[in-house]
Amino acid sequence: MASAVAERLVARLAAAVPALDAAAEAAAAERQARLLKPAGSLGLLEDLGVRLAAITGRCPPPVPARPTVLVAAGDHGVVAQGVTPWPQEVTGAMVAAMTAGQAAVNAIAGAIGAEVRLLDAGVASPPAPHPMVRQGNRRRGTADLAAGPAMTREQAATAVLEGAAAAEELLAAGADLLVTGDMGIGNTTPAACLVATFTGREPASVTGRGTGIDDATFERKVRVVERALALHAPDPADPVGVLAAVGGLEHAALAGLALAAAARRMPVVLDGVNAGAAALAAAAIAPAVTGFLIAGHRSVEPGASAVLEHLGLVPLLDLGMRLGEGTGALLAVPIVRAAAAVLGGMATFEEAGLDG
Amino acid sequence: MASAVAERLVARLAAAVPALDAAAEAAAAERQARLLKPAGSLGLLEDLGVRLAAITGRCPPPVPARPTVLVAAGDHGVVAQGVTPWPQEVTGAMVAAMTAGQAAVNAIAGAIGAEVRLLDAGVASPPAPHPMVRQGNRRRGTADLAAGPAMTREQAATAVLEGAAAAEELLAAGADLLVTGDMGIGNTTPAACLVATFTGREPASVTGRGTGIDDATFERKVRVVERALALHAPDPADPVGVLAAVGGLEHAALAGLALAAAARRMPVVLDGVNAGAAALAAAAIAPAVTGFLIAGHRSVEPGASAVLEHLGLVPLLDLGMRLGEGTGALLAVPIVRAAAAVLGGMATFEEAGLDG
Repeated sequence: MASAVAERLVARLAAAVPALDAAAEAAAAERQARLLKPAGSLGLLEDLGVRLAAITGRCPPPVPARPTVLVAAGDHGVVAQGVTPWPQEVTGAMVAAMTAGQAAVNAIAGAIGAEVRLLDAGVASPPAPHPMVRQGNRRRGTADLAAGPAMTREQAATAVLEGAAAAEELLAAGADLLVTGDMGIGNTTPAACLVATFTGREPASVTGRGTGIDDATFERKVRVVERALALHAPDPADPVGVLAAVGGLEHAALAGLALAAAARRMPVVLDGVNAGAAALAAAAIAPAVTGFLIAGHRSVEPGASAVLEHLGLVPLLDLGMRLGEGTGALLAVPIVRAAAAVLGGMATFEEAGLDG
Repeated sequence: MASAVAERLVARLAAAVPALDAAAEAAAAERQARLLKPAGSLGLLEDLGVRLAAITGRCPPPVPARPTVLVAAGDHGVVAQGVTPWPQEVTGAMVAAMTAGQAAVNAIAGAIGAEVRLLDAGVASPPAPHPMVRQGNRRRGTADLAAGPAMTREQAATAVLEGAAAAEELLAAGADLLVTGDMGIGNTTPAACLVATFTGREPASVTGRGTGIDDATFERKVRVVERALALHAPDPADPVGVLAAVGGLEHAALAGLALAAAARRMPVVLDGVNAGAAALAAAAIAPAVTGFLIAGHRSVEPGASAVLEHLGLVPLLDLGMRLGEGTGALLAVPIVRAAAAVLGGMATFEEAGLDG
């Protein structure tokens, strides 16, 4: 489709993001105070329960029964700059491993009772057709963002729409909590570009070591991010333009997922720096989306903490993780379920026959 | 039974605590390094998986299928000193609420898939018989530790044995992960006494606000702890004596639970300051027990952090919680399950056909 059409559809997605439900939020806060426990004694779990009410518009909020992680996968032309020691083929190989149930995301999703789905947002080598994988790519990997735009505006907008369509498909199938996952060799470089652009921070402060690169590679990666930002001078007020210049197809797709979930009043649990970069893009497209985002964990990637601060999100976990795939966010899902269960399942002092 | 007999049985419990399994630990560390992920990218989850192998003696460690929280309940004569605004009757009322499924522990256990059991370690008003509640009390609440010993040595040793018996019953029924829970109005005062004694820290630095007391009550509570320690001068090398002088029946019982679980190579997830105080007593009885303990969370109670530091435990969660009942520890159970699932469920690079 023409860029103008795709961008108009993104604007329509943005317009569908509702405000948080203030009445349900107030009812939940009021109920929280009457539950059979000292006030405030459940800490962040209490705040989270109230926010779930605000998100879903229901008090008590429903306990998510079918959490689903969507792993958006894409490749990155910027690997030509030597920002990672891993060959690009690993992206496709990991998609195959995920469909075979062999990856960390599968093991962790199994342990916490979540489903795993994948979106081929732009893997360089086409993944074999598989019921777990949705096709949603408009190009097989981005171009080298250090040398030119990563993709066209039309492709960036379309990737957002593909992520939204994937989310809508999952929600229509019964998913009631979405978890962001990502896979893409080299993707922490565009993530750093996105975080620097949307937060206004220095590239060196938001660029991380990804899979665990050495000092020389890290220095090169910071220079690449600096050069890309100098080359494109991306305008944070033009999120589609930012994604096109320095983003990844999976970042665009996860931004779309967040917008679509918010439009359906469904909570989204964010993973690490790639999810965070996508969240910044989504919030630039529709600021109200932030209220629907739950920070699953604090990744060790410095850009992830920059995102949390910028969006005002408090992470539920801090386990020193940096794998991606949605692994950190998945570990937070039981906490989200518990927060809802507290509001819905506990008695009040009155109901238990005790006076508060 | 006579004190000498009870104490000899506690010594036998202590002698049954094995060393961690170094071979399974080494095998898990080696497997962790070959799994399909950048080395170290799962952070604390990797360390936890290796420790589960060391605990269970199996690599990969089994994924706990029947986690069970045991809420040990007891009353405390020290409430006569005005250390809490809650009336003592609330302990029994909360036990009743838990058997009715109305408390926070029930809601959270339901959300994460754990079972709830209770041990009446010494509630002042006898709980009604209920299939969830095991009777294990030798006295209906402790005496006022600020005025004399909380209980006799025989009662303290017997409470340890009762907790161990409760744990053994749960394990025999199929539980494969035990979570410590506690309920007892006033129990953070004996907990502070225990933590100060076993860690050697100042009472003021390990005494907390429990359910959320005001400044005047808090000052009074610190003075009570100071006075009790001056009165009894408990010897940390004599853990049964410490429990008898300044402990609670539920602390003694949870120490017994930890010892019995370790003897069966089962992991124990600790909740907050009461669990921590019990863990210190257990570690004083049998130092090897520490390796079998997993710190579920960092409670806001300062004594809880003192315990973690003293035992060298890294908490999995830090959610600003201070309710007790096992609530914080329960939220960490899915992380424990995921850590085991990673070691058992993920492919290695070799198995996935990728060269590391």
